[in-house]
Amino acid sequence: MVDGSSRKEDTFLALDIGGTSVTCGLVSRSGEILMTDSFPTAQGPSPAAMTEIMADKLKDIWTKADRHRRPKALGIGAPGWIKPTEGIVVMAPNIPGWREVPITRIMSEAMDLPAILENDANLYALGEWLAGAGKGHDNEITLTLGTGVGGGLILNGHLWSGSFTSAAEVGHIPLNPWSGAICGCGRKGCLETVTSAKGMTRLGLEWLASGRETLYKGPPEELNPAVMQKLALKKDPMSLSVFKEAGEALGLALAAIFNLLSLEVAVIGGGAAGAFDFIINHLLATLGEHLVTAQINEIQVVKGLLGVNAPLVGAAALLEAAGY
Amino acid sequence: MVDGSSRKEDTFLALDIGGTSVTCGLVSRSGEILMTDSFPTAQGPSPAAMTEIMADKLKDIWTKADRHRRPKALGIGAPGWIKPTEGIVVMAPNIPGWREVPITRIMSEAMDLPAILENDANLYALGEWLAGAGKGHDNEITLTLGTGVGGGLILNGHLWSGSFTSAAEVGHIPLNPWSGAICGCGRKGCLETVTSAKGMTRLGLEWLASGRETLYKGPPEELNPAVMQKLALKKDPMSLSVFKEAGEALGLALAAIFNLLSLEVAVIGGGAAGAFDFIINHLLATLGEHLVTAQINEIQVVKGLLGVNAPLVGAAALLEAAGY
Repeated sequence: MVDGSSRKEDTFLALDIGGTSVTCGLVSRSGEILMTDSFPTAQGPSPAAMTEIMADKLKDIWTKADRHRRPKALGIGAPGWIKPTEGIVVMAPNIPGWREVPITRIMSEAMDLPAILENDANLYALGEWLAGAGKGHDNEITLTLGTGVGGGLILNGHLWSGSFTSAAEVGHIPLNPWSGAICGCGRKGCLETVTSAKGMTRLGLEWLASGRETLYKGPPEELNPAVMQKLALKKDPMSLSVFKEAGEALGLALAAIFNLLSLEVAVIGGGAAGAFDFIINHLLATLGEHLVTAQINEIQVVKGLLGVNAPLVGAAALLEAAGY
Repeated sequence: MVDGSSRKEDTFLALDIGGTSVTCGLVSRSGEILMTDSFPTAQGPSPAAMTEIMADKLKDIWTKADRHRRPKALGIGAPGWIKPTEGIVVMAPNIPGWREVPITRIMSEAMDLPAILENDANLYALGEWLAGAGKGHDNEITLTLGTGVGGGLILNGHLWSGSFTSAAEVGHIPLNPWSGAICGCGRKGCLETVTSAKGMTRLGLEWLASGRETLYKGPPEELNPAVMQKLALKKDPMSLSVFKEAGEALGLALAAIFNLLSLEVAVIGGGAAGAFDFIINHLLATLGEHLVTAQINEIQVVKGLLGVNAPLVGAAALLEAAGY
């Protein structure tokens, strides 16, 4: 049936290399997830050993899905500092040993398929745009609230990379450079000091240390946004306060972004987006207060729909846009 | 010679309607200013009376320049809230009586020429891009430091308008929403509370009121950025402090903008850009500290070259892009 198959039935392989886990998948041209697998990001093996595991997993997926049908190409998402056009992961701070890894060449040779590399947050944004919460919107930003805060920008229905193929670095937008917390990057008051999983946890720990009232009775080292999310359902003042502060910070950042670009939708994704329901009202109140390019009811701020699959779906959008 | 003339020799008429004055001009396709005239913005006459004066001035320019050669079209810049695609000035807060004025239709009929309306800061950005400080750069933002702070964004060599034809509203980016000054718009800590001519004057007046040392001996009502610029040459502590604060605020705003869009150049224009030399070092220091999408030496922040002619030159770029 291969010969008679339509372009619509084309498949792509996708790889999302994260600091915690690597996700592999087979995705249709339209962004439908056909099969996925994942494994924990090895902290010990060299990048060479890791890429071997990735290739094995991808081949396994491909064989199981349809051994007779060749995927058109491979899309790779990676964190940290990458050079997409050269296919190199220059440095991935959360994956020890990953420095100057020519990931595109390695994986392309291992799979005997053309491959493209892109920033993981950009793939996430492309995924939500193709088949998730941003579907149907030409001008969109996606923020990923994870260990840090990433971003991906869709303008006129295309991923925007800018002059240095590094756009949408929203995590280090200076939000409160005068009295904000010190960021992991060494700067003061970056957006992610308040809105990343790490930032929200820091806010919670400050609350704990101050001795203010809270329903949380566990040890400080076990506090995280998922825990606070459960407590927020019980109206825990600490958790509600943390999500309020995160929501207001996101509202301010989005006000700058919407005022600058006149977008129509923002998608909030990433692991810490589980707290979306506790964040959104504060976010919208602050955004509405500072929005000048549209009325607040003309724009949308929505929760991502695809979760960890978003970058895999995004790989399909990336490869489609590249002509595969 | 009309018949044998080339497309390169085409001319456009241009109109920049400002709160203080109206500038009219004849511009070549490549952005060369062939002739200009201006008159103070009438505070008394109705929009109808004003448009009559504009039409007379434009006809006069056209006749003087070359009565036999017909300009291809008219580009109109206007401040405030406009609807470019409908050709309507919805509201221009600084020009009394300007509400729901169908300026494009009025001027097009008066001149018997096709006309296009655009936000004045956008035209300013287009002008600096076509023939000024942004020439040769595909990804660029222009900030105009005037009574307020306007902006225009060039992405991939095209004016970026966004979903609601209202992008680059940088003046109301929330810079310091916690402890910033109240903006003319009613919000707190907008960028223009510190970086507009009005904002810089406010900072100077605060300095005066506090009794701190200054070389300024005039009455408070005569203080403005031009006065401070002269005093800064004599190392006046008030003026230097005001320009430092403005520079740092611009550096923070540009950090957010460059990190989001990965631009290569920012042009600083508008009346208060005369203080550029006192602002730039503080601006670059702050921008460099918060820039993550490029090294500070890979990007440029430059002073606009065209001054009040920038929107007229921008009209040529706008009309050329529209196919005239």
